[in-house]
Amino acid sequence: MSDALPVGATIGILGGGQLGRMLSVAASRLGFKTCVYEPGGDCPASHVSNYHFQKSYDDAEALKSFAQSVDVITYEFENVPTSALDLLESGAPIRPNRWALATSQNRITEKEFLEGLGLKVAPFAAVTSAAELKAAVAKIGAPSILKTQTLGYDGKGQARIKDGDDLDAVWAQMNDAPCVLEGFIEFSHEVSVIGARALDGQVACFDPGENVHRDGILHTTTVPANLSGAQRTDAVLMAGRILNALDYVGVLGVELFVTPAGLIVNEIAPRVHNSGHWTQNGCVIDQFEQHIRAVAGWPLGDGSRHADTVMENLIGADMDRVAALSADPDVALHLYGKADAKPGRKMGHINRVSPKS
Amino acid sequence: MSDALPVGATIGILGGGQLGRMLSVAASRLGFKTCVYEPGGDCPASHVSNYHFQKSYDDAEALKSFAQSVDVITYEFENVPTSALDLLESGAPIRPNRWALATSQNRITEKEFLEGLGLKVAPFAAVTSAAELKAAVAKIGAPSILKTQTLGYDGKGQARIKDGDDLDAVWAQMNDAPCVLEGFIEFSHEVSVIGARALDGQVACFDPGENVHRDGILHTTTVPANLSGAQRTDAVLMAGRILNALDYVGVLGVELFVTPAGLIVNEIAPRVHNSGHWTQNGCVIDQFEQHIRAVAGWPLGDGSRHADTVMENLIGADMDRVAALSADPDVALHLYGKADAKPGRKMGHINRVSPKS
Repeated sequence: MSDALPVGATIGILGGGQLGRMLSVAASRLGFKTCVYEPGGDCPASHVSNYHFQKSYDDAEALKSFAQSVDVITYEFENVPTSALDLLESGAPIRPNRWALATSQNRITEKEFLEGLGLKVAPFAAVTSAAELKAAVAKIGAPSILKTQTLGYDGKGQARIKDGDDLDAVWAQMNDAPCVLEGFIEFSHEVSVIGARALDGQVACFDPGENVHRDGILHTTTVPANLSGAQRTDAVLMAGRILNALDYVGVLGVELFVTPAGLIVNEIAPRVHNSGHWTQNGCVIDQFEQHIRAVAGWPLGDGSRHADTVMENLIGADMDRVAALSADPDVALHLYGKADAKPGRKMGHINRVSPKS
Repeated sequence: MSDALPVGATIGILGGGQLGRMLSVAASRLGFKTCVYEPGGDCPASHVSNYHFQKSYDDAEALKSFAQSVDVITYEFENVPTSALDLLESGAPIRPNRWALATSQNRITEKEFLEGLGLKVAPFAAVTSAAELKAAVAKIGAPSILKTQTLGYDGKGQARIKDGDDLDAVWAQMNDAPCVLEGFIEFSHEVSVIGARALDGQVACFDPGENVHRDGILHTTTVPANLSGAQRTDAVLMAGRILNALDYVGVLGVELFVTPAGLIVNEIAPRVHNSGHWTQNGCVIDQFEQHIRAVAGWPLGDGSRHADTVMENLIGADMDRVAALSADPDVALHLYGKADAKPGRKMGHINRVSPKS
């Protein structure tokens, strides 16, 4: 542990949402202080962190000051501006590294990286005009999905394309953003692997979870996932290959489609991941502590599962269910401290726990 | 849940040590904000709370302002000054109530209360002079223990008395503080029950833990404790009787001596308790969340145990073991963010987890 941060060191977190909040709690468990950089006030992470830089990502002085006041910098979202990273990296190490971030910031770069590792991805084509969209649909077919190359999350910046759709109209919705057309994959279900890699290269993965989405937003993750032993091994090996190839330090989420032709990578996220929230009640060391351990240069924890768990997101009006859920003996509540329960907004999640199968 | 605090409400915590820290984390999980009142700066609880009133307990304006800025007031230590409570109670409800606090603030009051419930305690006598000490030793015998009636914790303010000791010299050590002489109990081991009672009277107890002390400070708590089924039932019923008699709201720790003549109450603590830290890794809902649920008027959680756990305190130089402990796959670390690892100071604890027996 020669490169390990000492207890009492300060971990800088870019982004003050629920992931930053739960990272901050995990950091406190290990005796670290946290400093959150987030333009918004009263943000979820600020409630449980030592310091909050309420500054914008184009405030050069604030970014430099933040970097100098922390011992390591990590992030809870993949869309940290490059210009901000340029300023930050002179002050403290950024983990996971910028290559991992850049790879996942652009869907084309990401898919090319994954193909380069010999992993399967959906057929795809870059699309930057209505003409390219037509050519791409002619090549890849429909149904297919048009996504912005950058900045998309939770189903935002996406359009589904069916046979016969007016492609000029579809393209007009995308506001000229560079896009990628992804072929539709015939998959039986989606799973994800939450993997972690330490500073010394040690790799550990949590049990894969099975994901169900609603309206483009993750609805539930069920662990254990419905996978054969061979598929399970395959999923974990794929995550390990990605982690090693990126010289990654921290937790990474890998979404996989389960198909008759094997596992196909949907996307990767260079951060703790919504589909890993089950680990808070299914494992002794959860994904948030695993991430903090990794970026602090500590050994990874044992992430073995001690319980079966169904994670369910609480979105918007689901908050009306909190009173009933709080009385359910099998439910662990995790709320994010957000003031307004707007439609589509992730307000919290529950983990429904049962004995390990 | 008509009296339940809504998500987003603010919980005031008197005391900013490790118990306040872990209460604050539990409150955040349920979407509450926390406001800590603690004269010391850089205190463990302030690292993970929304607000920190760094004010003294005789600052009337600060106390009133604190009480008005929170929705309920709870505490992490039993020695909150009465004068402070007088000022606080006009602003927000204090839970657990002042009667519970007053009962446990004085060892004589506490023992008389317990005897009044029909529970067994060690033979005791009030001692306020050397002459009374001699009379008390003549009546109760030696070995016995002289303790201050108030403000003692972790073995502080205590003197062991052996046959033939110079009682004038022993008394001189106590600085004229009102004391109680407690007869020595022949016990095989000590256990504790962490009980909780909700605003509506619902009672729940965690599995009893078995405690081992070193130098007057809790060293380990092992769960399950070595108890017969009948003893276990007895212990839980005793905790329930105490909780109900005090019209208690929150978590209470009850320390019990296991003797051939049955269970004898050592002491009670009107707060989350060091011997309940194992619940963080042995239960889905831990003692800290259970306490927050109770004081917020929420239903209690299910505190059933899913793992065997040995909690061990990290005291002073035990912090040198953190690097090794962080690499132990069976260990969950919980550090308190204290800067100086002074001898005798509680710096953190570990929970060593194994499958449920």
